Amino acid sequence: MEFVDQAEAARAASIELATLTRDAKDAALQSMADAVAAAEADLLAANAVDVQAARDAGTDESIVDRLALTPARIAGMVQGLRDLAALPDPIGDAVRGWRLGNGVRVTQVRVPFGVVGIIYEARPNVTADAAGICLKSGNAALLRGSSSALITNRVTVAALRRGLEAAGITPDAVHLVEGGREITGDMMRARGLVDVLIPRGGAGLIRTVVEGSTVPVIETGTGNCHLYVDAAADLDQAVAILLNAKVQRPSVCNAAETLLVHRDVAEAFLPRALAALAGAGVTVHGDDATRVFSDDVVAATATEYDEEYLSLDLAAKVVGSLEEAMDHIRRHTTGHSETIITRDRDVADRFVAGIDAAAVLVNASSRFVDGGEFGFGAEIGISTQKLHARGPMGLVEMTSSKYVIEGDGQVRA
Amino acid sequence: MEFVDQAEAARAASIELATLTRDAKDAALQSMADAVAAAEADLLAANAVDVQAARDAGTDESIVDRLALTPARIAGMVQGLRDLAALPDPIGDAVRGWRLGNGVRVTQVRVPFGVVGIIYEARPNVTADAAGICLKSGNAALLRGSSSALITNRVTVAALRRGLEAAGITPDAVHLVEGGREITGDMMRARGLVDVLIPRGGAGLIRTVVEGSTVPVIETGTGNCHLYVDAAADLDQAVAILLNAKVQRPSVCNAAETLLVHRDVAEAFLPRALAALAGAGVTVHGDDATRVFSDDVVAATATEYDEEYLSLDLAAKVVGSLEEAMDHIRRHTTGHSETIITRDRDVADRFVAGIDAAAVLVNASSRFVDGGEFGFGAEIGISTQKLHARGPMGLVEMTSSKYVIEGDGQVRA
Repeated sequence: MEFVDQAEAARAASIELATLTRDAKDAALQSMADAVAAAEADLLAANAVDVQAARDAGTDESIVDRLALTPARIAGMVQGLRDLAALPDPIGDAVRGWRLGNGVRVTQVRVPFGVVGIIYEARPNVTADAAGICLKSGNAALLRGSSSALITNRVTVAALRRGLEAAGITPDAVHLVEGGREITGDMMRARGLVDVLIPRGGAGLIRTVVEGSTVPVIETGTGNCHLYVDAAADLDQAVAILLNAKVQRPSVCNAAETLLVHRDVAEAFLPRALAALAGAGVTVHGDDATRVFSDDVVAATATEYDEEYLSLDLAAKVVGSLEEAMDHIRRHTTGHSETIITRDRDVADRFVAGIDAAAVLVNASSRFVDGGEFGFGAEIGISTQKLHARGPMGLVEMTSSKYVIEGDGQVRA
Repeated sequence: MEFVDQAEAARAASIELATLTRDAKDAALQSMADAVAAAEADLLAANAVDVQAARDAGTDESIVDRLALTPARIAGMVQGLRDLAALPDPIGDAVRGWRLGNGVRVTQVRVPFGVVGIIYEARPNVTADAAGICLKSGNAALLRGSSSALITNRVTVAALRRGLEAAGITPDAVHLVEGGREITGDMMRARGLVDVLIPRGGAGLIRTVVEGSTVPVIETGTGNCHLYVDAAADLDQAVAILLNAKVQRPSVCNAAETLLVHRDVAEAFLPRALAALAGAGVTVHGDDATRVFSDDVVAATATEYDEEYLSLDLAAKVVGSLEEAMDHIRRHTTGHSETIITRDRDVADRFVAGIDAAAVLVNASSRFVDGGEFGFGAEIGISTQKLHARGPMGLVEMTSSKYVIEGDGQVRA
């Protein structure tokens, strides 16, 4: 099907989806889960074709690993859909309401966006996750996966659509958008057909979508996260939080990328921290003041403070004051998650007030900035923009609202 | 000052603005009001230059009227700033908060966007209104007014900046962006310097900004609003609401533009409605089924159902069913305000659920879809997009949020 036909079918489906009850949506999610589970053999066979093609093309094994499905990963997709059925339905919730002086009743009610476009990279589990989140939030989904996962995604989407049909819901709620790069452009310019675009992937993909799209975009995911160890830090806490934020899962957006240390505690903190980091396999890229404390610290280049490593690497810098730390963060932040370690209440307050990011943390690991950790139950991504949603996006963040205004003949004076 | 220098100064100011107390902002608003009041003579003199230039250029008198200041209009600008001081400050409000299982405290707090760009047409009162709304919501403002109001806007912004300085707040909180059309382009591409752009004006301006901007945009204002008179309508109410929605202020976005009438009540309703509309000076542009009832109804052209008249004109059409009415609205709506007149609860519910717009009204005039009528106290515009804010935008809609996460050393398992 051509993209425009898919988008129009999705828009038509969105009218039906907007009025579904929670029970109907939950039954559909269970049916989609059943269909994916039943397709396990087909999914593994299709995925083997994608994996082989990726290997033949010389793709890096870490990317091949993301692309690969296993029975356990398929079981995870199935469980993800079932877990969504257990979550509350945000649609129809009254956000607020009041009466005008003349008795007219105003209620702001949560409604779906309508049609959501998701552009994402190789992980095939995103296909089922995103389709499920969109369905539960009453949105039709246009899924634009990586071409490297195309054969897998076709089988997944076919199963999801069979599940929808078996539950008596139009399969046009979910579409796989196929075709060359120009189709991504068509999606980005489908104003009026697509209500919101969510890119999920690396910084390059996100930049392309943000700059080329006339459809409203929710930007997700890049996190050049800083951890500032203040002069009044509890240094035991600082070491533990630093290690957790850097090492627990270095490839994700809420992992620490830059360590800033107040010079008054550099001598007490850095030898311990650098030893602990080295023990965990982390390469530190530091300024001269950091390199004094260990021969293992390599010299940081000028651009290094601007980039996510997403690996066992960490930039480090000694600063003279809280203000210098905040100034550094302001110049290099991607607005994701910024952390201070301090026992000084006033310093913490100044950091929290003065740093502009989706999340500002005091004495806790930035790894908590996550929809699962927040208790959202599902997450479509972590927004780093200020419009609409900021931080982890769950089902509520996948909704818009409308005002329902009820009177009995009132007119404006 | 060059635009980029203004934007950087505004960004620097936004750090200060984000941490101001309500008292400091309210004192600044009063000081800005005092400064505008004190500048009355200068404002009138400057405005006379703009008005004369507009007349010399052959500008339509209705537009010259919008451009013209009077002592009463200046008093309105002054009072608008004072009224803002009386409104609650949304910044710092906790939207929601909870504790994680490990004791980490999560609080979602309202924060300013940072730097807001507003691109608007000739009304000079928008300059003071927008600056005041931005200041109260903790945002720095880049104001891009019409070149036809440039001399007036310069005097207004100079007064606003003097007011800020007198209150001890950086005048860089408010800037007038001058220069040719290319400057509007610079604003639209100032990602990272400008956090959100709000175009206020006609459909052409809004389309230009939406299509050309890489900065997130909040779309406001176009309202091709429908009023559907159902078979079960109270026809007295229908006539009164129709007249109010069309005639009370035809030039605004929440005025009715198209009347849809169920054919079962066409004969009982249309002769009365058409007579009342004619009595109010409204020209009706109807389909054949409407024209049966009055020789004064002119034939509607094919494109007429897609456009806002913003005048004493009204499109009209007879429909065979609720579904046909909803289908017509879906094809022609701008997503602003859509009204049904009916006593049938089930029909009302189907309309409310099935129509996707910022506001859906039952038995009330669409003229109520307004920040002032809603009790917001201030309005920057009426959003017709689904992302971030939908419907009238008050101070709360001029904010973002951030998560403040506080622990005592917790790390992720």
